[in-house]
Amino acid sequence: MMPGNLSGGASPEMKVPIPASAKRRSRDERGRLDYRKTSLTPRSLFCWRERPVLSDDTGEGNVPTLDNRITSVVWQGDSVSILDQRKLPSEEIWIETSDYRLVIESIQNMSVRGAPAIGIVGSYGLVLAAMELAQTANGDFTDRLHATARKIREARPTGANLGWAVNRMLSGAASAQTTEEVVADLLSEATRIHREDIESNRQIGRNGARLLPWGSTPLTHCNTGALATGGHGTALGIVRTAWADGRIERVYATETRPLLQGARLTAWELERERIPASLIADSASGIVMRRGLVHAVIVGADRIAANGDVANKIGTYNLAVLAKENGIPFYVAAPTGTLDISLSVGEEIVIEERDEDEVLGYGDTRSAPQGMSAFNPAFDVTPNRYVTAIVTELGVARPPYRRSLATLMEQNHESPLSLDGRGLEPAPYHDTGVRVKNLD
Amino acid sequence: MMPGNLSGGASPEMKVPIPASAKRRSRDERGRLDYRKTSLTPRSLFCWRERPVLSDDTGEGNVPTLDNRITSVVWQGDSVSILDQRKLPSEEIWIETSDYRLVIESIQNMSVRGAPAIGIVGSYGLVLAAMELAQTANGDFTDRLHATARKIREARPTGANLGWAVNRMLSGAASAQTTEEVVADLLSEATRIHREDIESNRQIGRNGARLLPWGSTPLTHCNTGALATGGHGTALGIVRTAWADGRIERVYATETRPLLQGARLTAWELERERIPASLIADSASGIVMRRGLVHAVIVGADRIAANGDVANKIGTYNLAVLAKENGIPFYVAAPTGTLDISLSVGEEIVIEERDEDEVLGYGDTRSAPQGMSAFNPAFDVTPNRYVTAIVTELGVARPPYRRSLATLMEQNHESPLSLDGRGLEPAPYHDTGVRVKNLD
Repeated sequence: MMPGNLSGGASPEMKVPIPASAKRRSRDERGRLDYRKTSLTPRSLFCWRERPVLSDDTGEGNVPTLDNRITSVVWQGDSVSILDQRKLPSEEIWIETSDYRLVIESIQNMSVRGAPAIGIVGSYGLVLAAMELAQTANGDFTDRLHATARKIREARPTGANLGWAVNRMLSGAASAQTTEEVVADLLSEATRIHREDIESNRQIGRNGARLLPWGSTPLTHCNTGALATGGHGTALGIVRTAWADGRIERVYATETRPLLQGARLTAWELERERIPASLIADSASGIVMRRGLVHAVIVGADRIAANGDVANKIGTYNLAVLAKENGIPFYVAAPTGTLDISLSVGEEIVIEERDEDEVLGYGDTRSAPQGMSAFNPAFDVTPNRYVTAIVTELGVARPPYRRSLATLMEQNHESPLSLDGRGLEPAPYHDTGVRVKNLD
Repeated sequence: MMPGNLSGGASPEMKVPIPASAKRRSRDERGRLDYRKTSLTPRSLFCWRERPVLSDDTGEGNVPTLDNRITSVVWQGDSVSILDQRKLPSEEIWIETSDYRLVIESIQNMSVRGAPAIGIVGSYGLVLAAMELAQTANGDFTDRLHATARKIREARPTGANLGWAVNRMLSGAASAQTTEEVVADLLSEATRIHREDIESNRQIGRNGARLLPWGSTPLTHCNTGALATGGHGTALGIVRTAWADGRIERVYATETRPLLQGARLTAWELERERIPASLIADSASGIVMRRGLVHAVIVGADRIAANGDVANKIGTYNLAVLAKENGIPFYVAAPTGTLDISLSVGEEIVIEERDEDEVLGYGDTRSAPQGMSAFNPAFDVTPNRYVTAIVTELGVARPPYRRSLATLMEQNHESPLSLDGRGLEPAPYHDTGVRVKNLD
C-alpha cells in the first residue's frame, strides 16, 4: 500500500453523517486508510443506519458484492463493516471497526452468524490485528499475531469455518519477509476466502436451480442466504439463482422459531430481492405441502455425516418427514466443507442445546409463565433416507450417499474454500449420484 | 331468589380492594345480588388481579370449580367473571360484569376462547340480559330477550357451541310464566350447560388416561384445558386425569405459534397443577419423538368429519405425520358435540385463514420486514389414517371411524351437552372401536 496524505474525515460514500465522536483517519488517494501513518485507537467504532456503499470493483481488498448487494460483511480498505443481524429487519445497523477486538465481540455476541460468514469476518479481523501490530509491536510482531489469531479462533469454538479460515490466513502469510508483507498477504488471503465463498455459493445455486421444475414453489427453512455466507447463500442461494433464471414463482419461508431467522433474515433478503414470498409458522409447513403448494423443500446444513445424515436447524427433520409423506423432493444445499467424513452416521453429531429462554419468549417479550421449563435443541439430525439429493459446489450427490459423497470428495481432496478458485468456475452440471433408491 | 336488603359493597371474597368507581350493588344475605332491586348501569365493569374466590358449593347457580380451581368463567350470583386469556400468563385479569354487552365484547375480542368456554360465557350473558330486561322492559320482555339472544349468538358466528348454547337456553325457559321465572330458568340452564361440560371433560379424561402407559410422557398441542372449556379440558383434561392417576411423568407442550396458546395457556395450567412440563418450539416436536421421549400425542379437535378426519389447530397434521413415522399413538380428544356427521370427509371442512400479522410478529413485536406477506391458516385437517383413536365422553372410537363414530352416536342421539346429566356419570370404560388397521 502507498503511504497516504492526511485527507481524513468521512468518506463521501457514507450516507449519513458520521458522528463527531467518530475517529478521523488518514486515507490515501483511493480513500483507503494508511494504517502505518495512523494511530489506531481501540474501539474506534461507529454505526450508521445505511449500508456502506458497495463496490463492483474487484481490485485487491475489494470483494464484489453481488445479488442486489446483500452482504453481511464489507472490507472497507482499513476497517471491516459488519451488519448487525440481531437488529434486522427492524434496524439495519452496521458496525464498522478497525479494532480486531470488536470483531471478536461481534462474533461472540452473534452480530454475525452463519458459519461461512463468521469465517470471513474472522479473517478480516486478523488483517486488522496485523495492521495494528505493525505499528505497535516491538520485535514481537509474529508472536503477538499468533496470539491474536488464537483469540479470534476461539471466539466461537464450535464454528468449523472460523478455525479453518484463521489457519489458512496464517499459512498464506508464512513466506512474508516484513510486517508490511504480512499485512498485504493476510489481506489477499482474506479477500480470497471471501471471494471463493461467494463463488462456491453461486455454483451451488447453479447446480441446485436445475433441480427445480419451471414455475415451481420451493419451501425453505431458517436463513441460508447472503447474510449467512460471504454472499448469495446456499439453500437460499439456489432460490436466488432459480428466481433469476425464472424457474420459480414464489417461495414459502418458515419463520424458524425460536430465533426467527426465517421471519427476520430470509424474509428481509427475499424482500430486498423482490422475490414473491409467503412467511408461514413452522407448523403450517404440513398444510402447504399437503395442499400441493410446495414442489421442493430446500434447506442448508451445519454438518453432514459420511452417510448423508444431515444436522441442521431444528425443524429440518420435521420438514423432511412431511416432504417424504407428501412425495415432495427434499434437497440439502451445502459446500463440501460441511461434509464431516470423520462421522460415519448422524447419531454421532452432538446436538447443541441452547438457553430455554429462547423458547419461553421472543426478544424482550416473555410468553410462558414464570417457572415453566423449556427444551431447546438448536439442531436436529435428518436421516439420509429422507434426503433426495445433497447439492454442493462440486456437484449433486444422490443416494446412496456414502458412495456419492466419497466420489464427490475424491475429485478434490481439499475443502472447497481452499481451492484457490479451482473448481469454482461455472462448471458443467455434474451429478455423481447413483439414481437408485437409498441403499445406505 | 329472595329479595335482598341493601348490603352493598365489595364481597369480602375479593382479594384486592374494589376501585372506588366500581358499582356498589344490592346483595341478599348470601352475598348474591338481587337483580330486581338494583338499577344496573351498563358497563358496570371492574377488573382485579386475583382470581375470584371459587366455591365448592354446588347449589343453584354455583358451578363447582374443580382441578385446582382453574377456570376461565365464574358465575358470581349477579354477574359473570371472565378471565382475560389475552393477558395470560403475564397478567391474570378478571373481567367481572353484569352487562351482557360486555359479555359479547369479551367473546368478540377473544378475552374468552375455546368453543365450549364461549358457549358457557354466552349462556351467562343471556342470563344477565334477562335480568336487565326484567327491570327495564315494558311488556316487550320476550321480544327484547330474543333480540339480545340473537346478538349473543352472532358474537362469534363460527363457534358451534355458542349458537347451540343460546338456543338451548331459550328452550329451557320456554315454559316460564313470569319474567322472574324466565330469569330463574335461564340461570338453571346456564349452570347445567357449564356443569355438564365439566363432567363431559372429566369423562373424556377418564376414558383417555387409560390409553396412556404408566410412566409415560405425552405431547400436547395448543390449549385444550380448563381455560378452553367449562373446566378440566379435553386433551389437556386427559393429561390432568392421567397425572392425578400417577400415570404420566412429564408433558411436552408445543408453544403453538402463532398465538402461542401452548406457551401462554397450557404452560400456565400445567404450572398451576404442578405437572412437570417442557415447552418446545413447534419444530422441536420431531426431535423429541425421534429420540423416544414421547409416548403419545394427544390433541383436541375443532370439528371431526363422519370418517374421522380431524380439523384442529394448525400444526396438528404435522404432529400426526411425525407420530406415525415414529410409531407413536396419536389420540384426538373431543366431546361428541365436535362430531359433524353432516361432513363426510375432512376436505369439506372450511379452514379459516387469519390475519397475516399474527405470523409476521408476536404481540407488539414485529419480526418480519415491512412488505413481507404471510400465509396464516388457523387450522389444518388430519386425515383419519393418522389417528390412532378418538376419545369422547361416550367412549373411545377406533378405526374404521365411519363405523365406530356412528356406533358411538347411536347410543345417544343428542349432543353430550344436552344430556341433562345422562351419560355423564363416571361410566364404565367403553370402547366401540374395532381394533383393526384403518380401513376407512
